[in-house]
Amino acid sequence: MKIKRSILGQLPYGSDLLDAMTELVQKENIRLGRISGIGATTHAVVAFYDQNTKKYNPLEFPGGLEILNLQGNVSMRDGKPFVHIHLILGDPQGKVFGGHLLQGTKLFACEVTVDELEGDELVRAHDDRTGLYLWKTCLL
Amino acid sequence: MKIKRSILGQLPYGSDLLDAMTELVQKENIRLGRISGIGATTHAVVAFYDQNTKKYNPLEFPGGLEILNLQGNVSMRDGKPFVHIHLILGDPQGKVFGGHLLQGTKLFACEVTVDELEGDELVRAHDDRTGLYLWKTCLL
Amino acid sequence: MKIKRSILGQLPYGSDLLDAMTELVQKENIRLGRISGIGATTHAVVAFYDQNTKKYNPLEFPGGLEILNLQGNVSMRDGKPFVHIHLILGDPQGKVFGGHLLQGTKLFACEVTVDELEGDELVRAHDDRTGLYLWKTCLL
Repeated sequence: MKIKRSILGQLPYGSDLLDAMTELVQKENIRLGRISGIGATTHAVVAFYDQNTKKYNPLEFPGGLEILNLQGNVSMRDGKPFVHIHLILGDPQGKVFGGHLLQGTKLFACEVTVDELEGDELVRAHDDRTGLYLWKTCLL
Repeated sequence: MKIKRSILGQLPYGSDLLDAMTELVQKENIRLGRISGIGATTHAVVAFYDQNTKKYNPLEFPGGLEILNLQGNVSMRDGKPFVHIHLILGDPQGKVFGGHLLQGTKLFACEVTVDELEGDELVRAHDDRTGLYLWKTCLL
Repeated sequence: MKIKRSILGQLPYGSDLLDAMTELVQKENIRLGRISGIGATTHAVVAFYDQNTKKYNPLEFPGGLEILNLQGNVSMRDGKPFVHIHLILGDPQGKVFGGHLLQGTKLFACEVTVDELEGDELVRAHDDRTGLYLWKTCLL
């Protein structure tokens, strides 16, 4: 794969991080890529995936927090570009929290980069063993 | 935007992380880019931005800590390349702390990458709503 | 340096993260590069480097955890491509732990990107001051 294009910019104040990233990749027709960024939230919702029950358990973090890192990728699911992001948050004492990004995370500010990759598409499908929507092939 | 150039290398022992990154991008004349890295500090100073008072509250972490992640970007402020970095630190028990990087963070070791991007410059200006120095346009 | 190639893909279920990344860069003959990713572990082993004793102290995190971020690079050590990775983990309450990746970290799922860089090789050698295996030159 090659990096076809890189985007660096900010997401709107008050927007939902997951919705905004999804809208961005769909608007830009980025079907394969990676995401990174920093910023701040006014409210955050992430999840911990329970490997035994195979369920995402939501965790809410109200109030202003730093986005110390957001990291993820873009691939295809149900025929559309799909973003998968993990979020790391910092509180007023410098303590750190995080999880798998869910809808409901509202932005105070957010500066992201998206690299569009060219190469064979990666398609998410249900994986029985883990209960996750994973790609079909492995690098090894 | 395209990635014009990538740099991977280390910063000097004992240097101040924010000053060293600023010196690096100014020396290399990188006006738009992104930054990532790992390493260790002998003393760290980060801040939590209070969204109500619109002030950065500093937090000090003395003693040796791991830099589990540093992430950020380069854009223009006051006519000069300016770096914005969030830092994530790990302590001897594996507990994690972090915030917005300030001056005063001294390096034990640090391995960074900087991608220089080509494209329209992003310029920071005071944003009244947040109190932050943000770019004028949004991706959405 | 330039980015020669980018890889986005997943590592196998049950594989050891450090061994799998090492196998990947050696198989692909990536001698200079950077690494990022997200995922989940079934068991994690990281280390805190004690700057006084110059020893890595291992820390074990049993049970399922989120990989909130993995970040690192590829360079040469003892004539072979060598990976250096820092790992950030999230628990069921959203609490965060991390350190320098060691062998023994088993994957539930892991989506990684590797950028192969072209340019002069970076070679790790023992550095007396820190006790670490560092590159010989600095960016500043």
